[in-house]
Amino acid sequence: MTTNASTVPAYAAPAAGAPLERTTVPRRAVGAHDVLIDIKYAGICHSDIHQARDGWGRGIYPMVPGHEIAGTVAEVGSGVTKFAVGDRVGVGCFVDSCRECEHCRQGLEQYCTRGGTATYNALDKNGEPTYGGYSTRIVVDENYTVRIPDGLALDEAAPLLCAGITLYSPLRHWNAGPGKKVAIVGLGGLGHMGVKIAHALGAEVTVLSQTLRKKDDGLKLGADHYYATGDDVTFRALAGTFDLIVSTVSAPLPFDKYLGLLKTDGAMVNVGAPEEPISLNLFSVIGGRKTLAGSMIGGIRETQEMLDFCAEHGLGAEIELIRAEQINEAYERVLASDVRYRFVIDTATI
Amino acid sequence: MTTNASTVPAYAAPAAGAPLERTTVPRRAVGAHDVLIDIKYAGICHSDIHQARDGWGRGIYPMVPGHEIAGTVAEVGSGVTKFAVGDRVGVGCFVDSCRECEHCRQGLEQYCTRGGTATYNALDKNGEPTYGGYSTRIVVDENYTVRIPDGLALDEAAPLLCAGITLYSPLRHWNAGPGKKVAIVGLGGLGHMGVKIAHALGAEVTVLSQTLRKKDDGLKLGADHYYATGDDVTFRALAGTFDLIVSTVSAPLPFDKYLGLLKTDGAMVNVGAPEEPISLNLFSVIGGRKTLAGSMIGGIRETQEMLDFCAEHGLGAEIELIRAEQINEAYERVLASDVRYRFVIDTATI
Repeated sequence: MTTNASTVPAYAAPAAGAPLERTTVPRRAVGAHDVLIDIKYAGICHSDIHQARDGWGRGIYPMVPGHEIAGTVAEVGSGVTKFAVGDRVGVGCFVDSCRECEHCRQGLEQYCTRGGTATYNALDKNGEPTYGGYSTRIVVDENYTVRIPDGLALDEAAPLLCAGITLYSPLRHWNAGPGKKVAIVGLGGLGHMGVKIAHALGAEVTVLSQTLRKKDDGLKLGADHYYATGDDVTFRALAGTFDLIVSTVSAPLPFDKYLGLLKTDGAMVNVGAPEEPISLNLFSVIGGRKTLAGSMIGGIRETQEMLDFCAEHGLGAEIELIRAEQINEAYERVLASDVRYRFVIDTATI
Repeated sequence: MTTNASTVPAYAAPAAGAPLERTTVPRRAVGAHDVLIDIKYAGICHSDIHQARDGWGRGIYPMVPGHEIAGTVAEVGSGVTKFAVGDRVGVGCFVDSCRECEHCRQGLEQYCTRGGTATYNALDKNGEPTYGGYSTRIVVDENYTVRIPDGLALDEAAPLLCAGITLYSPLRHWNAGPGKKVAIVGLGGLGHMGVKIAHALGAEVTVLSQTLRKKDDGLKLGADHYYATGDDVTFRALAGTFDLIVSTVSAPLPFDKYLGLLKTDGAMVNVGAPEEPISLNLFSVIGGRKTLAGSMIGGIRETQEMLDFCAEHGLGAEIELIRAEQINEAYERVLASDVRYRFVIDTATI
């Protein structure tokens, strides 16, 4: 038996830049391979704010943000084999992809050649808009749903679906582990998960933050060292130190200085980025065969691997749980870097 | 018996930007681990011109350029074990390094932590200026001398010591080979060796050049495809095509467009670079987990490997042999891109 299409409560931006308000949005009928998820928690990602305010243009309104979704399965389609009612599940940044291109076949759906379907602010294969996790229920294909292990609290797991995988994927791809010196630039929602994961992977972890304001936190989260990038001495003291730098910030960094912190053959991987072009001198990568690279979230298989890893190591996000009516206030606080380290919406309050 | 220090004929720039003229320069006594080399041929590298004109500042004059040196051993020091009189040998971009840092120990002397000793326009460990290959003789430590296999003509081998290794090293490091699509940007002294080597490694090779002017040459050298970057259609037609792009040019390229030519996980490696900072949008590497990297010549062990590889595959440089008195004219022609593809000085004419 398949549930019909439904209408569910949600918080949406009615227009670009307008405050989010309570509304309802449609959810499709539960298809053969779909699961209907009772959303329990939804993290607030910086990109939610950016998109709600149409920072990248072409926003689809009303927009229900949210791609850090944790909940339980309320119903499964007739062909579902991976999940059963009651299972603890998560949904991340995308809910579909072409499934046929080389990237999809390799489990790199995030780089789907034809472009995947984002969890919100996108059109699905039927041309219907997608609505995200600031809502009470969502219908998602089981192949784009992951399992949240029992060892993780659902509220602390929600941010892993974007912030966690965004850091886990490059840390794994660029071999963070024992004997490796890894720097995480920026200690925010992304960066704090980077510190936890890099530490759990066995790397020696340094936080590079503008000031020492969050130093105590950083060390508690697992960092071995903490330096202020606002102090130029840092760049002299740490020259040639790191195998890997993962930058989570969207500020236009002085890249030549950061590349100078890498060892020969080291890589600086950007998971955050400014909108504007950045500037660097190519001699900063030529001397020392260095790499400036980027990375974008992770595939479904790797997202599951990340959740299993985080459960095994007890790595939830550091969160501040809020009620739905606090979303707009939370947005302002995120923009002011006033959150340690992720706001998570209790969707029971929607 | 060790030869005393000597004075040898050479062509030098007496001052920054002055035409090169015949002179003499000192060569040190042949030490226990030195070889005295009768230089037969010296290639003209673009960086010779740049340094003779003090493009990087701090030039040491008189300056005898030349780091693409091919010749034969005239004498060996008492402790030399690797070479004998009469052996065919080459010397590349550096003639010493610290020998103790992790890079030197790994055979990556080009990235010596303390900085190696360049073949010219540098001071050696005794504070004496080094003089390069536009000369008839040079004294070099046997550990910084490589063997030129019999299968390679000495004149065609000379440019391999810089142009050859500069391309071989990144092509190997980034796994150019069967099943890989490799683009070489720029078909000059460096680029033409890149085409030959990438083709011999088994990769599918594309030349990306401003115009189709040298297309026939490119295909003869081993390229499978040849595109004009002056035509914007190229960037649309080849989007997402390459595993590896090696750029040999020093022009400030539109990097976002070039990065768009890479597949997911592809790398654009720069062995040429403009003096000025370049500009790119980080989203060009984030979407597709791409790499912008650099590479600088190669180590001694890899340079020997490259020469053996080139001999095995019959890959000499395409050269135009000149007399010493044509050096200044050749410099102008290099700057005008009027050389196919490397000028080599017959040092018998010095």
